[in-house]
Amino acid sequence: MENAVPLVEVWRGALLESTHSGHAVVCDTSGNIVAAWGDPEAVIYPRSSCKMIQALPLITSGAADRYGLTSEQLALACASHNGAAIHTTRVERWLDQLGLAESDFRCGPQDPADKAAHDGLIRSGQQPCQIHNNCSGKHSGFLTLNRYMGGGPEYHEVDHPVQQAVLAAFEEVTGEDSPGYGIDGCSAPNFATSLHGLARAMAWFASAGSRSDQASAAAGRLVQAMMAHPELVAGEGRACTALMRALGGKAAVKTGAEGVFTAILPEQGLGVALKIADGATRASECTMAAMLIWLGLLESDNPVALDYCNAPIRSRLGLDAGVIRPVAGFIRPI
Amino acid sequence: MENAVPLVEVWRGALLESTHSGHAVVCDTSGNIVAAWGDPEAVIYPRSSCKMIQALPLITSGAADRYGLTSEQLALACASHNGAAIHTTRVERWLDQLGLAESDFRCGPQDPADKAAHDGLIRSGQQPCQIHNNCSGKHSGFLTLNRYMGGGPEYHEVDHPVQQAVLAAFEEVTGEDSPGYGIDGCSAPNFATSLHGLARAMAWFASAGSRSDQASAAAGRLVQAMMAHPELVAGEGRACTALMRALGGKAAVKTGAEGVFTAILPEQGLGVALKIADGATRASECTMAAMLIWLGLLESDNPVALDYCNAPIRSRLGLDAGVIRPVAGFIRPI
Repeated sequence: MENAVPLVEVWRGALLESTHSGHAVVCDTSGNIVAAWGDPEAVIYPRSSCKMIQALPLITSGAADRYGLTSEQLALACASHNGAAIHTTRVERWLDQLGLAESDFRCGPQDPADKAAHDGLIRSGQQPCQIHNNCSGKHSGFLTLNRYMGGGPEYHEVDHPVQQAVLAAFEEVTGEDSPGYGIDGCSAPNFATSLHGLARAMAWFASAGSRSDQASAAAGRLVQAMMAHPELVAGEGRACTALMRALGGKAAVKTGAEGVFTAILPEQGLGVALKIADGATRASECTMAAMLIWLGLLESDNPVALDYCNAPIRSRLGLDAGVIRPVAGFIRPI
Repeated sequence: MENAVPLVEVWRGALLESTHSGHAVVCDTSGNIVAAWGDPEAVIYPRSSCKMIQALPLITSGAADRYGLTSEQLALACASHNGAAIHTTRVERWLDQLGLAESDFRCGPQDPADKAAHDGLIRSGQQPCQIHNNCSGKHSGFLTLNRYMGGGPEYHEVDHPVQQAVLAAFEEVTGEDSPGYGIDGCSAPNFATSLHGLARAMAWFASAGSRSDQASAAAGRLVQAMMAHPELVAGEGRACTALMRALGGKAAVKTGAEGVFTAILPEQGLGVALKIADGATRASECTMAAMLIWLGLLESDNPVALDYCNAPIRSRLGLDAGVIRPVAGFIRPI
């Protein structure tokens, strides 16, 4: 993470308490860099910010249509969800539709971030299961593709046909040979790319509607699904959901662990990718909101933009203690 | 946070996924810098890492002895606890002892980090209260001092005699005029200092046993209390508790929010203070463990040291995905 530049400041009183540096790239549909902060060639794991890429083979293979997947299911395939009832009930139905069970997942159990779901499990003495995993929609997509392809049960292994199909799509849309992979929190491989490659992929998604090839048609369906169902892509109180609602169908955005965030801007024909060097989500959310303002997609006084670009730090009594905001000059003054 | 140097690396597979930079200082009892990384004159908020300083006036005033505070209570006054039953029952008794109630606190309610306490509240339909606040021991100390001094109820305000007594102690032991304060998560003022000043203060605590003045006697009692009751200073699963247990009475260590960590090393007569520029706790814990190894207080193969200096990253299925570790060369190879 060399050559990262300061992007976000955490102020408490009159003192700059902490700072976050990182890299950010805006690409046009030719794959050219329109704007960059830090090192656009920094190699990163996109983590969950590339779920729409991982969902491409689900559609291009014919599996999504074979199983009649809805727009809601495509949104869930791209989601890092809260494990709320709106997510888990749909994932359960999806498993039923495939004739599969929770035990067919390979994502592992995760405590749901949704408070009602979390508290409900505790009250009923139940443990979280793999359906609650924030990636269970992506894994439902993997299971659907695997069912269609007739692959073995260990669909999360890098040599499995499902993941090899993901890798082929990933290298196609990033325009790069992936230099390697890491194991993601959900045990699926996560392929590395330069930030430039990730932004190039997002710009390719942004311009999908202008092309007629099968992969572009698949990309267009995924972007439309994300924008149509922001509550399924993340959940209440989450940045992806709040920002996509505020954007009102003008863009799809997706967070990833360790400080990654991507955006697909169809109207502008632009793709955005950013990585906070230290991996902080508070900083990736702030930077993405700042970039959406900078790109003219959000007004700087939009309440959702302010939630992330001028995020108040309060004491547990509610006293105003500080603010998290972009570095001065990154966007227009708020 | 200029001139911060890389201290911690987050690896996933063969790729360096994230990095953390910061500043660290080791001071001797003369206040001289023995070793430093980054900028020792960086001005920071110590946050909870200076609770032993905030507890000094509780003893030097005579309040602690007037109310017969035990070693356990002094440890709690220095604690950022988990809100487990071992903490909250003692804080409740402390309030009873003072003839005060939960509503006399000004720290605000906080959901306890301790899972049993957290789950217990949900099962019984109760909300967390101010006793669960990780700072309720510190605030019990403030209330005790305030009771002794006869001050007004808003003891958390910076102009209140309690906080002015804290400021005087803080400036005395850091050897600096504090350039200002911020409001901490518990609504108490948190006074700024250079990292050098904070390390100087820790070295002063470390050498307290060699002096006979009232403040040094108070410091000695606080350090002994922290080392005698590591489970009260934080809680099960927490770095301060685990490291102090592993150190077996050779040092007191204390974490603070936004990536701060301090250590008091009586046998060596040294004080340590560090700040991760981006505020990450995973990095402050790793750096502190690395420094304790570097200083010869922990063996590099100590299991607790490895928990923080070679911290495995696992997928939710339990697959080995990566590691969090100090930058190469910071400590002896593990």
